[in-house]
Amino acid sequence: MLVRFTKMHGLGNDFMVVDLVTQRIRLSEDKVRRLADRHMGVGFDQLLLVEPPTNPEMDFRYRIYNADGSEVEHCGNGARCFARFVRDKRLTNKDVIAVETAKGKALLTIRADNQIEVDMGAPALSPAAIPFIADGQAAVYSLDVNNQRVQISAVSMGNPHAVLVVDDVDHAPVETLGPALESHPRFPAKANIGFMQIISPTQVKLRVYERGAGETMACGTGACAAVVAGRLRGLLGDSVDVHLPGGVLHISWKGGKEDSVMMTGPAASVFEGQVFL
Amino acid sequence: MLVRFTKMHGLGNDFMVVDLVTQRIRLSEDKVRRLADRHMGVGFDQLLLVEPPTNPEMDFRYRIYNADGSEVEHCGNGARCFARFVRDKRLTNKDVIAVETAKGKALLTIRADNQIEVDMGAPALSPAAIPFIADGQAAVYSLDVNNQRVQISAVSMGNPHAVLVVDDVDHAPVETLGPALESHPRFPAKANIGFMQIISPTQVKLRVYERGAGETMACGTGACAAVVAGRLRGLLGDSVDVHLPGGVLHISWKGGKEDSVMMTGPAASVFEGQVFL
Repeated sequence: MLVRFTKMHGLGNDFMVVDLVTQRIRLSEDKVRRLADRHMGVGFDQLLLVEPPTNPEMDFRYRIYNADGSEVEHCGNGARCFARFVRDKRLTNKDVIAVETAKGKALLTIRADNQIEVDMGAPALSPAAIPFIADGQAAVYSLDVNNQRVQISAVSMGNPHAVLVVDDVDHAPVETLGPALESHPRFPAKANIGFMQIISPTQVKLRVYERGAGETMACGTGACAAVVAGRLRGLLGDSVDVHLPGGVLHISWKGGKEDSVMMTGPAASVFEGQVFL
Repeated sequence: MLVRFTKMHGLGNDFMVVDLVTQRIRLSEDKVRRLADRHMGVGFDQLLLVEPPTNPEMDFRYRIYNADGSEVEHCGNGARCFARFVRDKRLTNKDVIAVETAKGKALLTIRADNQIEVDMGAPALSPAAIPFIADGQAAVYSLDVNNQRVQISAVSMGNPHAVLVVDDVDHAPVETLGPALESHPRFPAKANIGFMQIISPTQVKLRVYERGAGETMACGTGACAAVVAGRLRGLLGDSVDVHLPGGVLHISWKGGKEDSVMMTGPAASVFEGQVFL
């Protein structure tokens, strides 16, 4: 059958978005993989499905799949595209959209300037929750890697992050320290590795080596983790512009244990498509 | 304005195809580059434009652009997609389509089995025409590269090719010899490097390291050059199946100086799209 879709991106992280509110299709893992192929398929980092909610208090159900066909829990860049999509397609006229995800409820807010704010949840800092092997919780840990000692912060945003503060992010050893820290034995579930340069208490530059993917254009949870780490270390305020290779995300965090990290950024539609499935 | 396009591929070599017979748009080099981006644009190896002919004896004008916005003369995989497109879109009902290219006339034939035959022109074998630095024309030349001596054939199919015969293409040194031969001083305009394993006089396996692009799924001119080289060396007949990583191309060449190399293979539509330009 002929399926309508929209190709979108959030700071270069790109999505095939399919409306399953007005269309009915079944996508096998194998079909997702074939659609993800950038030469013989549509091509995308992730497939985003917009479904009716199973819980009547929610507006939509949000499902997201990696290019290998596996389901993912959440993705900040995807959530912004999701909000843009349901508004552009007039599936809702709300400014605050309640979305059912694999992790629970997520609130997406469309602002007057067209940027989208996503509630990314509260960070987890206890070593067991990250998971990270350490004697106790601290803002900074020393780690031995590649015959040197580095200082990292460890934060979970639903996925494990190590954050390093560097003097010059453009010359940071992302390609060498990134993979070495990703697979460091003290991160039993591996980790995403952020290299952050502090410009001021409200501005940072960040590059992220993503677990299983290498360096990416704009890691949403990485931006959140970096601001949490910087705040815990007394280097940042509670509202920070994070300059990533793909563009800018605005991150705010009040600093309390239960406080959600709020991420604000753009979402763009690239083209409309129709594919036989 | 909203522009309709079709995404297609020929053995994994992928194209954005735009009908400029029924649509009017102007595409700057910068726009082509942005459309080619696989994350923030449509994403393609090449952009294929279907235009009305300037010569009334032709059916269409064929134009093709690389992802960097530069115009290319010809592409066998693109020509097959072109023929499939003009038939699928009912821009013609002919089986033999005369196309005006930057290099002159090209004939594309849609066969009963839906495969498309493309006249790739006659090969050029004189060293000056390739260009290749040698004292005279030969079927095989010895070349010193990476501290070893290798035997190559040199063929131009509109672009320069070196072809090596190997025992086992799966373990051929494509990643090391490919770039070294591509930039060998005896190829002043660089070269595409083919590694061919002879299975029988009618079957070969081929991997091609493409000039400026690295190893590709299915190089049409590389398949032609390999069969010409194999025939000149007495290893192949005049009709050969070339098994490339992306699939099979059928190549035939009668062997005469003026004889065109004929390439037959598939073309597939992936999806229909609409993009604002």
